[in-house]
Amino acid sequence: MKLGRVVGTVVASRKDEKLEGLRLYMVQDLSLGITGRDSFVVAVDSVGAGVNEVVLYASGSSARQTRETDGRPVDAVIMAIVDTVEVNGAVAYDKSGD
Amino acid sequence: MKLGRVVGTVVASRKDEKLEGLRLYMVQDLSLGITGRDSFVVAVDSVGAGVNEVVLYASGSSARQTRETDGRPVDAVIMAIVDTVEVNGAVAYDKSGD
Amino acid sequence: MKLGRVVGTVVASRKDEKLEGLRLYMVQDLSLGITGRDSFVVAVDSVGAGVNEVVLYASGSSARQTRETDGRPVDAVIMAIVDTVEVNGAVAYDKSGD
Amino acid sequence: MKLGRVVGTVVASRKDEKLEGLRLYMVQDLSLGITGRDSFVVAVDSVGAGVNEVVLYASGSSARQTRETDGRPVDAVIMAIVDTVEVNGAVAYDKSGD
Amino acid sequence: MKLGRVVGTVVASRKDEKLEGLRLYMVQDLSLGITGRDSFVVAVDSVGAGVNEVVLYASGSSARQTRETDGRPVDAVIMAIVDTVEVNGAVAYDKSGD
Repeated sequence: MKLGRVVGTVVASRKDEKLEGLRLYMVQDLSLGITGRDSFVVAVDSVGAGVNEVVLYASGSSARQTRETDGRPVDAVIMAIVDTVEVNGAVAYDKSGD
Repeated sequence: MKLGRVVGTVVASRKDEKLEGLRLYMVQDLSLGITGRDSFVVAVDSVGAGVNEVVLYASGSSARQTRETDGRPVDAVIMAIVDTVEVNGAVAYDKSGD
Repeated sequence: MKLGRVVGTVVASRKDEKLEGLRLYMVQDLSLGITGRDSFVVAVDSVGAGVNEVVLYASGSSARQTRETDGRPVDAVIMAIVDTVEVNGAVAYDKSGD
Repeated sequence: MKLGRVVGTVVASRKDEKLEGLRLYMVQDLSLGITGRDSFVVAVDSVGAGVNEVVLYASGSSARQTRETDGRPVDAVIMAIVDTVEVNGAVAYDKSGD
Repeated sequence: MKLGRVVGTVVASRKDEKLEGLRLYMVQDLSLGITGRDSFVVAVDSVGAGVNEVVLYASGSSARQTRETDGRPVDAVIMAIVDTVEVNGAVAYDKSGD
């Protein structure tokens, strides 16, 4: 999985029928220091994430292993909202103080 | 999924039989600021996209989860035409004003 | 899919039994301007491509969706020989004038 | 597979139900010289790894081939703890002297 | 597939049960000119390759299509030992003169 921050939303009225009802988020990749990278994905939300939250997303066929995404043309899914990240013994991210 | 802009077309008369009837588009990857990146893919269209539109495409096995691409040697499919993208609270792209 | 140019061949007499009879090509990735990039793959040919031709190749599990590659340890397959590529309204590649 | 070093942990209380009970590690990619790279993944642990250990992780659908990860939205799994790495005839890493 | 050179070995006594009996090689990626790149993978050997040989490896789910790797958490497999590579009409690699 990758760590990302939800930085925005995508609206698409014309889409494959199997995408109906799914929420699409812009998710910016994060560095080990929990700062924004240059890269991002558009991911489906399966856990009720919101803009500005740090999340975990899964890619590829693994992104279709949730109830929301099973059998759909989806290659990235947000499957967890991150509370804390610890790197090298220090707190790199804490949602409560974000 | 990734955000891309349809910038062109590919014509191939000699191809695997399972590719017959599919439209092939050149799709340039976009940055968070919705400007063109250096990279691109050739994607099959499943939603009636046209040149110059901003689209979402799915890659890998997920690209075979549409009716048009099921069971075919296709690893990228356009599955949505984007209306709007919002990043960090501002409109980064609006199809009506593109 | 990606656009590549067939730039050479690979010969391997000792290989997995499921690779017997497959032709292996060196395929250099191409830029939007149809010039050679630094990267390449070794792809199986499913359409009778030849050296110097511009082709489309599919990667990952999608590369196993052709008759030649089904069930084999192959992650890249040439599935089309390109006639023309049009980018931003201009012809970027034309096989007849290559 | 890739070589990585476990550099930290991720805690997420709100997550897809299929992630319950899985331990999530920050795994930094390593170079051929066994030094830390810029990139990392968040991987599920299937072998009882601990922080600071050098491990192997598998990505994509292969990450779902362990008992712990079967059928779950997981795209990276730690499946081995590395004892030694030898590169070009020299010991590049030895756990006992790490 | 990708071209790589076997540059070393990985030993891991603690690992997923499905990895028992598999040989793990450090495989450095090669450029079109058959020189070593910065990147590498750890791949399972299915063809009896040895250190210093130039090989082909397959990634992702395709890496599980050999008898040795079927159903295992393995995302890279060496499936051929390369005899010769020809690029742009010249021999870029010849095992007999390596």
